Amino acid sequence: MPGLRWPSWWRADQRRHWAGDALAGAVVTVLVIPQSLAYAMLAGLPPTMGLYASVWPVLAYAFLGSSQVLAVGPVAVTSLMTASALLPLAVAASPEYVALAMGLALLSGLMLTLAGVLRLGFLAYFLSQPVISGFVTGVAILIAIGQLPGLLGLTIEGRGVANTLVGVWAQWAQVHRPTAALGLASLAILWWARTHLARVWGRWAGSPAVGLWLARMAPLAVVLLATFIVVQTGGATGLGVAVVGPIEPGLPSWQLVHLDGPQWLSLCVPALLIALIGFVESVSLAQAYAIERQQRLEPDRELMGLGVANVLSGLSGGYSVAGGFSRTVINASAGAQTPMASVVAALLMALVMLGFSQAFEVLPVAVLSASIFVSVLTLVDVQTLRQAWRYDKADAWSWLATFWGVLVAGVELGIGMGVVLSLAVLVWRSSRPHMAVVGRIEGTEHFRNIDRHRVQTLAGLIALRVDESLFFANAAALEEKVSQLLAQHSDTRALLLILSAVNRIDTTALMMLDGLERSLALKGVQMSLAEVKGPVMDRLGQTDLGRRLASRIYLSTNEAFNAHR
Amino acid sequence: MPGLRWPSWWRADQRRHWAGDALAGAVVTVLVIPQSLAYAMLAGLPPTMGLYASVWPVLAYAFLGSSQVLAVGPVAVTSLMTASALLPLAVAASPEYVALAMGLALLSGLMLTLAGVLRLGFLAYFLSQPVISGFVTGVAILIAIGQLPGLLGLTIEGRGVANTLVGVWAQWAQVHRPTAALGLASLAILWWARTHLARVWGRWAGSPAVGLWLARMAPLAVVLLATFIVVQTGGATGLGVAVVGPIEPGLPSWQLVHLDGPQWLSLCVPALLIALIGFVESVSLAQAYAIERQQRLEPDRELMGLGVANVLSGLSGGYSVAGGFSRTVINASAGAQTPMASVVAALLMALVMLGFSQAFEVLPVAVLSASIFVSVLTLVDVQTLRQAWRYDKADAWSWLATFWGVLVAGVELGIGMGVVLSLAVLVWRSSRPHMAVVGRIEGTEHFRNIDRHRVQTLAGLIALRVDESLFFANAAALEEKVSQLLAQHSDTRALLLILSAVNRIDTTALMMLDGLERSLALKGVQMSLAEVKGPVMDRLGQTDLGRRLASRIYLSTNEAFNAHR
Repeated sequence: MPGLRWPSWWRADQRRHWAGDALAGAVVTVLVIPQSLAYAMLAGLPPTMGLYASVWPVLAYAFLGSSQVLAVGPVAVTSLMTASALLPLAVAASPEYVALAMGLALLSGLMLTLAGVLRLGFLAYFLSQPVISGFVTGVAILIAIGQLPGLLGLTIEGRGVANTLVGVWAQWAQVHRPTAALGLASLAILWWARTHLARVWGRWAGSPAVGLWLARMAPLAVVLLATFIVVQTGGATGLGVAVVGPIEPGLPSWQLVHLDGPQWLSLCVPALLIALIGFVESVSLAQAYAIERQQRLEPDRELMGLGVANVLSGLSGGYSVAGGFSRTVINASAGAQTPMASVVAALLMALVMLGFSQAFEVLPVAVLSASIFVSVLTLVDVQTLRQAWRYDKADAWSWLATFWGVLVAGVELGIGMGVVLSLAVLVWRSSRPHMAVVGRIEGTEHFRNIDRHRVQTLAGLIALRVDESLFFANAAALEEKVSQLLAQHSDTRALLLILSAVNRIDTTALMMLDGLERSLALKGVQMSLAEVKGPVMDRLGQTDLGRRLASRIYLSTNEAFNAHR
Repeated sequence: MPGLRWPSWWRADQRRHWAGDALAGAVVTVLVIPQSLAYAMLAGLPPTMGLYASVWPVLAYAFLGSSQVLAVGPVAVTSLMTASALLPLAVAASPEYVALAMGLALLSGLMLTLAGVLRLGFLAYFLSQPVISGFVTGVAILIAIGQLPGLLGLTIEGRGVANTLVGVWAQWAQVHRPTAALGLASLAILWWARTHLARVWGRWAGSPAVGLWLARMAPLAVVLLATFIVVQTGGATGLGVAVVGPIEPGLPSWQLVHLDGPQWLSLCVPALLIALIGFVESVSLAQAYAIERQQRLEPDRELMGLGVANVLSGLSGGYSVAGGFSRTVINASAGAQTPMASVVAALLMALVMLGFSQAFEVLPVAVLSASIFVSVLTLVDVQTLRQAWRYDKADAWSWLATFWGVLVAGVELGIGMGVVLSLAVLVWRSSRPHMAVVGRIEGTEHFRNIDRHRVQTLAGLIALRVDESLFFANAAALEEKVSQLLAQHSDTRALLLILSAVNRIDTTALMMLDGLERSLALKGVQMSLAEVKGPVMDRLGQTDLGRRLASRIYLSTNEAFNAHR
């Protein structure tokens, strides 16, 4: 079982990083509080659940995960997926809804942990980048459009992109002006800060690093400023601007979720999808940092870390968590070297909840909507689509299919479509192994593809080089290739399979080769092998086929060629 | 669209086979009539539907399929799957049940045809042989046990292996003796004929070919004999032996299935599974013959052929059809050379139904049960399990998991388990590409794995040979391998990727390589490539990465080595 050892960053030689880590942890805590509240609201939950989800899960990941810098907490995509799964089942923010969200986190967490125990970390890599990018872009646009009512002070019944847009259009006259002013002004400032501040500051003051920091602090500044304005104008009862509202102070209490059988059952599929997406996104992010820092990422330990984090989140009043893009960027650039930064962030978050949580009651909702709007737009990734379009049209179509799937059919069907597409591509690729009929370059011992080079061949001999390991998905393709070649060359007396690139032959492929050898022998065609690798030969030697072929297995293609002359 | 040309066997030069084909078609018709009746009853349908399913579908496959010898009709496995899908929805043999069975064939057929149009024939190869073998063996045992009540003249409520066995045990006292005598005697004779007759005849009369023919005729002889006995003893009212019962004479009438929306919806998943299994089994069988006869099998045309066959079956009063093992063996060994044999068989079957179908009314059910029992036992394939157990334990475990899945959880969950297992193996395999760090064999231009050979390496250079095409499922593995190597060798200044075995790089892998190059450059590690294949280079050259690397792409590993010295 991975992850059950004391983490390496706890070692004495790593402790010199701890002071820097403590600072990074403090920065992360301050900057992600508004975001955590906003994501919880996006998930249809009371805002405090975003804070609850930032204590125990963060500690769990710090001790069990393998990334040194990944910051875990509520994230945009799984928040939307939570809302999308639960809104058909209960009224948003009701006690039942909260219990379902906790149950969902618990289930996802158990699935991830189980997958970690079973060492299924390799599953992180079975969604292609275009599918992930198309999915995330679709979700980002879904979330951004979903923020419009909050930004404008409107209430719109029902869900879905079309419904929201039509609703905003129809209720245009009812836009709440103070809310819209606050929301759109925040949006404009945040957008400008994110896209221009660093550059403008760099040019004006000559220090781009400070500019970057100012850009990162902008959301906090905007939130503080807007809150100040709202408080000064009489709070929620003054201008009528919606605020976050009552927050219960104190730490999350431990509790077991109480749901009945059918409720658990209805959570299974969404939990699986959230687990999958949360895991894939976290690993992509963590992998990018591991490469940059020349550290090792272990997908199985990531499963354990994220799994236990979600289990604890579900038991301590939080909801689904994953590695978050913006919190990880902040953590890394604030100087975090080890997960001690996350330990500090979790402890500080607990302190905030004990002492200051009621300060967030007057945060205006429109400003949180503006900050979500701006931060999800950074997830929009048209670059991958453009690159795929130029490089490989099939990949570009996967991007578009997943993207439109999410927008038109919703998050679950969208990711379902992405999974099916990825698997179909995998099966399709696997069923088409690269193979080449080869001949000898005159006067050498080199053998090359007869379609690309001028080479010598022997009458009656087909020499076929197989360029991939043989297993169930491509065994039939070899069989078919051979039957096609024999149909073209009716004078064939011998078939030589060159296995220089074959690292493994599974049972299906072995049975195919065995049957092929028998039926060829009946037709008077002799099968032989060349360049069989050591491990393949070890297994093959013990089989009936291996014994039948024993005298016809050649070390080199050249030797086989000479023997057939 | 495949398959819309006049089939090659219609050409003048093939017509010399037609006389032999006509004979083979006649033999098939006579021998498969009892089997078709029995399989329809296994599916819970009126026996005539087995005959209906042997006319139009057979003609459709003859003109659209690509196998010269595959005989299509009702088969054991899909018959059981039909029963398993429909028994929860309607009462066996009721008009509603019949309509559902026709709808199921229609849906499967449409799915297969669509898959053919989309050229998804490659999907035939994504179930591994151990999974197929475990599935078929499980189903065979399920079917065999399901015949016990019919053989003994018992009626047992409910379904499932355990239920049937317990029921037989509990009702042992009520066994209907004349039925059991007839059933068990038929079983013994059929079993002996199948396992010993050919050999005994061969030894006694010295002509094994005649013996084989006698063994093949045995089911027909047993059926005729048993029917004779039943008729002589007063038919169904005499000894009380159950018979097939009223059969409406005449040809199947064309009709559109009338089902409502929810009924169609509930048929979707079973239709998909039946289409998958029917297709996979037909292709495996047809492929074996294509190899033996050096003919070409086209999976896309197989999809079209089986698809249209099932559509016509569903519209003409039949049910799901596929390529059948025993009918194909009979067809091939009776001398069929082209699908004209099937055309003749279909026409003769139509004649039989017009003139003689009422003759089958007095067939005793127990004898049909006995013939099903014996013929499905030939599907039991422990050989594959034994071979896999010796050769590759992972494959043996897939066999066992699918087998027990079918027996314990039923046909649908069993095949679902097989599909998931196959896909998991595919993803797992794909996520572990073979890679080797190489060095130069002193004094040569050959490069070999440093773990297996004594080779020269250069300080600061890691030369990594990638042995598989790079794509989304294995891109991360390369990234991880590199980060692991860099962590082990902190003095690395250059990374050389040897792409001699890479036939394709997809967008995900390209983005990974691009990111890898950038982050390595930041660490002062220079990335270069060697032995990039032509088609890969063509695509790579147009990308940003290709332009950045341009001066660092070497033709041979040796050249790259010398450049890094």
